[in-house]
Amino acid sequence: MTERPLIISCPLPRTLPLLFAPDLLRDLFDRYDVVETTDEGLPALPAETLAEARYIIGQPPLSEDLLARMTSLRCIFNVESNLLPNMPYEDAFRRGIHVVTTGGVFAEPVAEIGLGFALSLARNIHGADADFRAGRERWGGEGNQAARLLTGSTIGILGMGALGQAVARLLPGFRPRLLAHDPWQAPSVTRGFGAEPVDLDTLLSSCSTLFVTAAVTSENQGFLGAEAFARMPRGASFILLSRAGVVDFDALMEAVRSGHIQAASDVFPDEPLPADHPARELPGFLLSAHRAGALDSAFKHMGEMVMEDLDLLDRGLPPQVCKRAERETVARFRSRPVAVN
Amino acid sequence: MTERPLIISCPLPRTLPLLFAPDLLRDLFDRYDVVETTDEGLPALPAETLAEARYIIGQPPLSEDLLARMTSLRCIFNVESNLLPNMPYEDAFRRGIHVVTTGGVFAEPVAEIGLGFALSLARNIHGADADFRAGRERWGGEGNQAARLLTGSTIGILGMGALGQAVARLLPGFRPRLLAHDPWQAPSVTRGFGAEPVDLDTLLSSCSTLFVTAAVTSENQGFLGAEAFARMPRGASFILLSRAGVVDFDALMEAVRSGHIQAASDVFPDEPLPADHPARELPGFLLSAHRAGALDSAFKHMGEMVMEDLDLLDRGLPPQVCKRAERETVARFRSRPVAVN
Amino acid sequence: MTERPLIISCPLPRTLPLLFAPDLLRDLFDRYDVVETTDEGLPALPAETLAEARYIIGQPPLSEDLLARMTSLRCIFNVESNLLPNMPYEDAFRRGIHVVTTGGVFAEPVAEIGLGFALSLARNIHGADADFRAGRERWGGEGNQAARLLTGSTIGILGMGALGQAVARLLPGFRPRLLAHDPWQAPSVTRGFGAEPVDLDTLLSSCSTLFVTAAVTSENQGFLGAEAFARMPRGASFILLSRAGVVDFDALMEAVRSGHIQAASDVFPDEPLPADHPARELPGFLLSAHRAGALDSAFKHMGEMVMEDLDLLDRGLPPQVCKRAERETVARFRSRPVAVN
Amino acid sequence: MTERPLIISCPLPRTLPLLFAPDLLRDLFDRYDVVETTDEGLPALPAETLAEARYIIGQPPLSEDLLARMTSLRCIFNVESNLLPNMPYEDAFRRGIHVVTTGGVFAEPVAEIGLGFALSLARNIHGADADFRAGRERWGGEGNQAARLLTGSTIGILGMGALGQAVARLLPGFRPRLLAHDPWQAPSVTRGFGAEPVDLDTLLSSCSTLFVTAAVTSENQGFLGAEAFARMPRGASFILLSRAGVVDFDALMEAVRSGHIQAASDVFPDEPLPADHPARELPGFLLSAHRAGALDSAFKHMGEMVMEDLDLLDRGLPPQVCKRAERETVARFRSRPVAVN
Repeated sequence: MTERPLIISCPLPRTLPLLFAPDLLRDLFDRYDVVETTDEGLPALPAETLAEARYIIGQPPLSEDLLARMTSLRCIFNVESNLLPNMPYEDAFRRGIHVVTTGGVFAEPVAEIGLGFALSLARNIHGADADFRAGRERWGGEGNQAARLLTGSTIGILGMGALGQAVARLLPGFRPRLLAHDPWQAPSVTRGFGAEPVDLDTLLSSCSTLFVTAAVTSENQGFLGAEAFARMPRGASFILLSRAGVVDFDALMEAVRSGHIQAASDVFPDEPLPADHPARELPGFLLSAHRAGALDSAFKHMGEMVMEDLDLLDRGLPPQVCKRAERETVARFRSRPVAVN
Repeated sequence: MTERPLIISCPLPRTLPLLFAPDLLRDLFDRYDVVETTDEGLPALPAETLAEARYIIGQPPLSEDLLARMTSLRCIFNVESNLLPNMPYEDAFRRGIHVVTTGGVFAEPVAEIGLGFALSLARNIHGADADFRAGRERWGGEGNQAARLLTGSTIGILGMGALGQAVARLLPGFRPRLLAHDPWQAPSVTRGFGAEPVDLDTLLSSCSTLFVTAAVTSENQGFLGAEAFARMPRGASFILLSRAGVVDFDALMEAVRSGHIQAASDVFPDEPLPADHPARELPGFLLSAHRAGALDSAFKHMGEMVMEDLDLLDRGLPPQVCKRAERETVARFRSRPVAVN
Repeated sequence: MTERPLIISCPLPRTLPLLFAPDLLRDLFDRYDVVETTDEGLPALPAETLAEARYIIGQPPLSEDLLARMTSLRCIFNVESNLLPNMPYEDAFRRGIHVVTTGGVFAEPVAEIGLGFALSLARNIHGADADFRAGRERWGGEGNQAARLLTGSTIGILGMGALGQAVARLLPGFRPRLLAHDPWQAPSVTRGFGAEPVDLDTLLSSCSTLFVTAAVTSENQGFLGAEAFARMPRGASFILLSRAGVVDFDALMEAVRSGHIQAASDVFPDEPLPADHPARELPGFLLSAHRAGALDSAFKHMGEMVMEDLDLLDRGLPPQVCKRAERETVARFRSRPVAVN
Repeated sequence: MTERPLIISCPLPRTLPLLFAPDLLRDLFDRYDVVETTDEGLPALPAETLAEARYIIGQPPLSEDLLARMTSLRCIFNVESNLLPNMPYEDAFRRGIHVVTTGGVFAEPVAEIGLGFALSLARNIHGADADFRAGRERWGGEGNQAARLLTGSTIGILGMGALGQAVARLLPGFRPRLLAHDPWQAPSVTRGFGAEPVDLDTLLSSCSTLFVTAAVTSENQGFLGAEAFARMPRGASFILLSRAGVVDFDALMEAVRSGHIQAASDVFPDEPLPADHPARELPGFLLSAHRAGALDSAFKHMGEMVMEDLDLLDRGLPPQVCKRAERETVARFRSRPVAVN
């Protein structure tokens, strides 16, 4: 006998307390009728509950029939944030049901660590600390043979989605020449973030620091290989922040091993990486174990996004904060979902 | 029989080729009559040469008598950049001879590595790389227990000279609350760099990241001790970029050892640091062997500054690019000069 | 026997040469099969042409039946830019046909003149010029009794769509406290433009300069009346840039006549305004005859936007540059279309 | 029997209440022993008072003898802000007495009205308002024949002192190509304000909007004449914000009359300007009666600057907020002082 909108919640591997800070969680339960279930339990909910549900928090598999029975549904909040081929998106779009993701929360933490990687490579911060601890540090200019500044340099961003944009926002203090490449984005949008849109070859051959933020799609798997690395200027830094799937990882390691470029990577072809993987011993390759985004503050940020969009949707407005899946691209993403947060 | 202005050059430990890129060095010799000597050789130069010299590049010891004989002198370019008590500054100022330093070139490289230190501490970039190589990395959120963002945090700068200003210029992308303390600077000047001027206690107790850029003066030696570190919020980062002389180094190490704060330092009480110094084994203390400023590009930048100010001085204008020594403060600095570049 | 995508063009009152600079117009005809018609002529086009048409440039009335026959349609570019109730939007959305507008081109020109209005009111630039010509100028501080700075002041924006955002982008140099109100927008989006989201009362009572950029909707007609103006601080500037329909115009004139506020307006309840309308003689009311957006460069900008989105659509991607109509809001807009450019 | 530092105050035409807001004025009298006098009265003050005076607020004529008797003097705050040849500056500098001016307070108000002039000229804001009142307004695009945007345009600043810098600070929102010329300033300093240093010819021939902020010196009187205006692009805006003495005013009027350029001016060869001066009837010439800087808030800002520097000087530090006169340039300025505020 409630008039509060009904939410079906099945966010695993996330959980509501991971997503919502205590105050916000209280708000959520105050304002909404929240039915907590699991991907498996959802189809078995009473027909009435399904028919009344306005929102889903989660990314459960939905059959055509199941979606059809959810006659009040307005928005599915995919809080895992990878779009899986597990529901009839076309049906949802036809009915005007929004499907949105909260992956934008990772943009700031990943961009920050990405800039940290870039500065560590440019100045060998991590290597100099290790040397110092081993008693083999070199003092002053002696330790700066390969050091260079980001200030005034040419910096590239491959992929100008939320993450590429977050990287761009951190850089103005360095007054760089900022280049970007993203075939899925209009040039004027790229320019709006202060970056000059260029083709891939120009990007690769011009930048002394290159941030790779492109999502894996059906079209770009492994598209950065030996040729791409060869095109980069000697001594340049290749910083991989999105998914290992966009590079030929062996070729990347070889380009670093040969001394042509340096690299940093937060992602790997296999995670966890085998104990005997050669990347673990490769000088000039800064290693991070898929830690770039997974901060507690990022997960809490997801809940804030969801709450803001719920408020808009409740008032008959479209969601604005979470990212909407699009008919044209929903089937093209190839990132694998996470199993742990 | 030249009409080119005469420069006496004795820049050791710098050298003209270190300071001037080849093109600029050619310009220097084209436009000026350059007499190359040493600190020791200078007093023995012909009286006529001394009387004609318009500029000195270097920081030679000058007696009152020697300065008095340099009747055409307009500017002394101290390219070592620490002001030593080795010349009668008051006489120079009385005669309107400028004494200027080029230490500003270190501001950008030091600020960049300082931000790199801050990001490495906030995300344990260096530690995670070492762990990964040792096969003990932790994946995803597991490895982020103490991780935090700079974005939106409270960041402090202690000392708003050229270096503090350069740090401030790198930060806007993080949209921080920026606080600063500098008793030698007017509050409105600090505000002009986007920082809120606060007292030392407020600075210490408010900031999760603190950049220390204050020069050592006769008044502030060792002024940051156990009490200061205790005031900092638990988990905060203390980043020492100027000189070890401003801190009680043992107290700093103890504050890190206890787990209260993290730290990064480019400077040490003794350089090189003894092989058995406990800092070398201290977790949470990021080490850098006085490498922050000593980039070749920084030294070349010195030459560019000198050339710009020579051009202004030649046209009867005051120097603007190098930093002028001031009657009020010239005797108060206590940084030791460098012996190597 | 072409394989070029087919565009049906009926952009009146715009024309293709108004929208596309010569080079771009050539590109358009090179890349596309362009069928030029009129709103009236469109339904009479051959069934085959209708069936093949991928794009419409224009905003023609479309019956359900007519739209149904356009089986290849992907996007309607409404270059007049007001969304009229003249087509079955729901059918279009169901089929995944985008309906987009190019009104964003007016944001920059309107924002610029809006800032010009604000500075003219704050300093009486227009009035002082008129006085000077009439020989009654007052010199120096005498002429500045009511003058005030924007720098450091509290500035408000009512409506944070493309126009409000463009205003916000011009203001950082004034280091204002920037407030905004827009019930259709999520607070975090507003914050992303550097403005603090506040309720309407706070906005009205806090700002010494208020830019009104809100579109007329079914919900906000005439919502700014005598009470709203009374809430504004004495001497504040009310700058109307969107549509006269959002204000009670008589109440606005009275608030200016009484000396409580100043105002500038580019829009009027009747356009052209009757020759004897009292606004024409009202001191403190800066008048502009709906000129804010109608620059030739703005119309040419429309063509650039259309070309960028055509390129994305041709490659199976969603449009990004033009603004998409939304199911939720398409029926709520009440701006009248223009009859002349 | 006081230990408060002694200030001699003779700021006419300013007055202490004009310069210091009530709270600050109270502070001034609390912290200092203030002897109020006039330019004429100063020499007749008791020898002891003269000998004790640490500061002067004002710009009184001082003979060599009088200055010699002021043995404790540290700083002269010239709050009129033009440096007159009425004191032995060389003696002051020799003794390390600072002579500082507070003219920097005018930079923000003048820059703001300057931007207002630029926008009024680019969009004919003032003219359209006059036309509207006269019943001859033109609606929409009809009224925009000569309208143009500042956004993305090439903008020039002639003179990069405090005023030119303040103009530069207002412009980033317009994303201009910003050029500047200032022979008294090092190129790297100009670059630091986001402007590209160019020679005068390039500046004149490249900019569609030109802000003239150069002070009159012994070298540049009337240096902008018919040739300079002819070099400007047709339709460009010439905005004169400093002093009429830098232009050939008749030539400027002729360049406007011919339709080649537009202009705005806040300053005139004779002030007040004769009632029959032809500038009063010149279309395309926006007129302002030397009102750009004389805001009450600007004068109050002077007091704040003086207080900040007094605090530094009291602590044995050099002044930083007011602008110091320089040996090299003090005798070269030719601006006439104001008689009224």
